[in-house]
Amino acid sequence: MSMVYEGALADLVEEFGKLPGIGPKSAQRLAFHILQSPELDVSALAHALTEVKKRVRFCETCGNVSEEEQCAVCKDPRREQSVICIVEEPKDVVAIERTREYRGLYHVLGGAIDPMAGVGPDDLRIKELLPRLESGTVTECVIATDPNLEGEATATYLIRLLSSLGVTVSKLASGLPVGGDLEYADEVTLGRAFQGRTSVA
Amino acid sequence: MSMVYEGALADLVEEFGKLPGIGPKSAQRLAFHILQSPELDVSALAHALTEVKKRVRFCETCGNVSEEEQCAVCKDPRREQSVICIVEEPKDVVAIERTREYRGLYHVLGGAIDPMAGVGPDDLRIKELLPRLESGTVTECVIATDPNLEGEATATYLIRLLSSLGVTVSKLASGLPVGGDLEYADEVTLGRAFQGRTSVA
Repeated sequence: MSMVYEGALADLVEEFGKLPGIGPKSAQRLAFHILQSPELDVSALAHALTEVKKRVRFCETCGNVSEEEQCAVCKDPRREQSVICIVEEPKDVVAIERTREYRGLYHVLGGAIDPMAGVGPDDLRIKELLPRLESGTVTECVIATDPNLEGEATATYLIRLLSSLGVTVSKLASGLPVGGDLEYADEVTLGRAFQGRTSVA
Repeated sequence: MSMVYEGALADLVEEFGKLPGIGPKSAQRLAFHILQSPELDVSALAHALTEVKKRVRFCETCGNVSEEEQCAVCKDPRREQSVICIVEEPKDVVAIERTREYRGLYHVLGGAIDPMAGVGPDDLRIKELLPRLESGTVTECVIATDPNLEGEATATYLIRLLSSLGVTVSKLASGLPVGGDLEYADEVTLGRAFQGRTSVA
């Protein structure tokens, strides 16, 4: 960026700048923040970085992040074993857990079908899902892919695949976001909200 | 944030969340990015963090960041030794260097006078500035503090202090930012632009 940066500081600005959503100005601000932070805080961050790469892997059953063979959800006997919620990424599991509305299991696909990016069904963890449905314990699959083009394509593919396996297949409701303004809802969302209207009296 | 995070990943989200301008959502996105990054990239970031704390210190002369006793600017014999530009922070040096308009030396105060935050003149590197003016080599001080309340207070203090020492004291021009719209300029800036108008024909 400039000749006044020397060695280590320039390296740190560069490394921060490689992170998603962090531009050159933010990278510089972060680097100067680090420079002024207590040594202990900085080594905690450096340690957390290397530990994540060392310890975190993916649950062999559901594909969620885990530090053991089985993730916390799969290991927990209190979770409903009859429902599997299918999501694209581990962060979707976090989002759903935060609602406290769901007590079943998960299956993380590791992405969505996206022909433009060369991602087909075989690139997702769909083959790992099928054995989980064979024992007969699972009676329902809730499809919770992102409500965008790739997510909808993945949902359509999964609905077709799973409906032949004798499990109930459901999909998260589309509609107006809570706290939003009706006049600002896009026409597709508003249309879906009409289609999915529920009788209240 | 949620029970589904385990150990190392939760730690990393927390550590990222402590950085300025990084909220919980960004911290989570960064942590998942790290999880999916090649091990080499992650260790480069971790290494850069610890190296900055280990190697970067402050120039004994001007207070700019440096890995040696003297920073790159102070060491450079081609810099004009007769002008010192006084700034608040090392990042201001970076900003000024980027203009390629200035070839003199710097003095970094390490902040600005801010009575509300308990920062007075004695908390800044002003006492380190005075010996630099004694030899007579320096003929001009350019005050380049931030154009805000604290910066202006610091500038006023410095002008009073330095004017008695026989050096020319100047201050960066206030006026319309280049590329801006006149109608959107605030009244103080526009007023300063009038006061500082220059004859062109």
